[in-house]
Amino acid sequence: MTDAWFTLACPAPSQAHRQRAIARQRQLTKPEGALGRLETLAIELAALQGREQPQATRVPVLVFAGDHGIAAQGVSAYPAEVTVQMLRNFATGGAAIAVLARELGVPLHVWDVGSLADAPVSGVTCDKPRRGTDDFTAGPAMAAADLDAVFAAGRRAVSAACDDGADLLLLGEMGIGNTTSASALAAVLGPLPLAELVGAGTGLDAARIAHKQAVIARALALHGAAITAAGDPGREALCRVGGLEIAALAAAMIAAAQRGVPVLVDGFIVSAAALAAVRVNPSLRPWLLFSHRSAERGHARVLEQLQADPLLQLDLRLGEGSGAALALPLLRLACALHNGMATFAEAAVADRSAAP
Amino acid sequence: MTDAWFTLACPAPSQAHRQRAIARQRQLTKPEGALGRLETLAIELAALQGREQPQATRVPVLVFAGDHGIAAQGVSAYPAEVTVQMLRNFATGGAAIAVLARELGVPLHVWDVGSLADAPVSGVTCDKPRRGTDDFTAGPAMAAADLDAVFAAGRRAVSAACDDGADLLLLGEMGIGNTTSASALAAVLGPLPLAELVGAGTGLDAARIAHKQAVIARALALHGAAITAAGDPGREALCRVGGLEIAALAAAMIAAAQRGVPVLVDGFIVSAAALAAVRVNPSLRPWLLFSHRSAERGHARVLEQLQADPLLQLDLRLGEGSGAALALPLLRLACALHNGMATFAEAAVADRSAAP
Repeated sequence: MTDAWFTLACPAPSQAHRQRAIARQRQLTKPEGALGRLETLAIELAALQGREQPQATRVPVLVFAGDHGIAAQGVSAYPAEVTVQMLRNFATGGAAIAVLARELGVPLHVWDVGSLADAPVSGVTCDKPRRGTDDFTAGPAMAAADLDAVFAAGRRAVSAACDDGADLLLLGEMGIGNTTSASALAAVLGPLPLAELVGAGTGLDAARIAHKQAVIARALALHGAAITAAGDPGREALCRVGGLEIAALAAAMIAAAQRGVPVLVDGFIVSAAALAAVRVNPSLRPWLLFSHRSAERGHARVLEQLQADPLLQLDLRLGEGSGAALALPLLRLACALHNGMATFAEAAVADRSAAP
Repeated sequence: MTDAWFTLACPAPSQAHRQRAIARQRQLTKPEGALGRLETLAIELAALQGREQPQATRVPVLVFAGDHGIAAQGVSAYPAEVTVQMLRNFATGGAAIAVLARELGVPLHVWDVGSLADAPVSGVTCDKPRRGTDDFTAGPAMAAADLDAVFAAGRRAVSAACDDGADLLLLGEMGIGNTTSASALAAVLGPLPLAELVGAGTGLDAARIAHKQAVIARALALHGAAITAAGDPGREALCRVGGLEIAALAAAMIAAAQRGVPVLVDGFIVSAAALAAVRVNPSLRPWLLFSHRSAERGHARVLEQLQADPLLQLDLRLGEGSGAALALPLLRLACALHNGMATFAEAAVADRSAAP
């Protein structure tokens, strides 16, 4: 039997391009390091893209949606119907990520990999093994075959989004109940203390956050040992306490990285998916760029676990890929500065070596 | 005698527009507050612009340049000639702010209000009362008449940049030696402890930072009491330890706010100018938006003093208006989200009141 696609190594970033980008940054007309994170971003993109001139022009946005059986436990401030209602809102352009994609001039691809919708939603690709997950307090969220199917869907979505060329892939999600699933994943895979992970999601009060935490604790009592003991804890966790859109995100990250496309990670849910994906395939890690630290309680801990230092911290807690979209201009401007600034020699500006 | 122009009150932001913007944010298809700082930004811009639909489309960038007599004390890692060399680099498009303005599609206005250049630099407006300031360890940086003249130049620059319509003004600066002047201003106007203000500027090592601090301490021993005792400490400080470009920045902020144009503040130097400007005319304060917290040591303290919580923290320490330019996309996207997202009613999405 051949190895499963998702275990195949992602390419290594180009050290030669990294070194050339570092050398170029030193020659640009500014004190060394004065552009801070913008410099390291441009250098990292040059290494990942294997280019002299890093780019963030062609940036498809890929949003996966799925529903969660766990929503029946009253873990969200919104009813499950909102997932499908928001799918329509993505397609008709009224949702935050749709507005952002339009403003940024990037295509928005919405994939329903597991919502409760009975019929396809116009403008949304329907590629789902099942409608919603099962309540994971009673058993696994999905069967192993469903996980394989949704991994394949995630990979197909990356092909559809990136086949015409992509400098970077931006990932987002929608799924009422998915902060619960993401918290469970992070708790077991970190491992991280549940109390530091469970937050308000779409807007729970303290009593309902406590209820949500108790629900997850029950689920982890049921599944935790089996996940930890599994040959592939990342996939086992996705199967038992994950979500269809979260599994698709994990698969999409690996698929993008395998084809040499860096991924701009959004908030708590996408980061939890990243935690699982890196566990499934550690060679993925260098391909993940982190956009923001959200206001959702657990995000900071998940980012620490991933050794990630995101660009923005703006008290966002929306998901959909909105935080990643908000960070995209910084990547674009980092590239423009790297590629477009004059060198000291070109501009006839004295470098500090000329200082008295 | 009529009051000097810079003491005339800036208009108050529109409370009616603020309230309408708050109400609109509550109806947009997202959990309340989920867009964090982007929501408050849009609300603030609506109030300042007095518009239903806040905009950040027409955003002139105005960079003031000046030289500093204090540079003779060896307080910078770069020689004073670099100020004029960089003026040319702004005009020919190779400097960071020129690249950023081009990418953002905004006009760049560069005003030489006091460089050492003997002849006008092509592409740069020359409007300077004098060439460079005097070394303020020996006497005032400039005469009172010079301060009046450079205030007038700052106001003229705002007219030139904004007369065709401006949603927002972005301010930047260039001047070898100007972190020394800015540190002195912040120390005396805060008042703030010098040791917490004096930093590496363009790249000093620890020994040269200590030297820079000693230079400023000598200057403050000479001027501090006179500044504190003055009728207008803000203007007295600009005159005695300021710089021509810093004084022009302070005047430009007041002039922009008086005509109802919000100002996006850049890094340490522009923030120090803001500290002086708010002292000259406290009604200016609501018109200042803060783009980033720089890596220059004193910036965080100056921001605290201004009760400012900037959008970005990216270890920038370049100046030129580059940090403000990097934040502009966030303002634009905040406006696009505010103006372009669907409401719950428009999108037929269930609001949380429908939750079980």
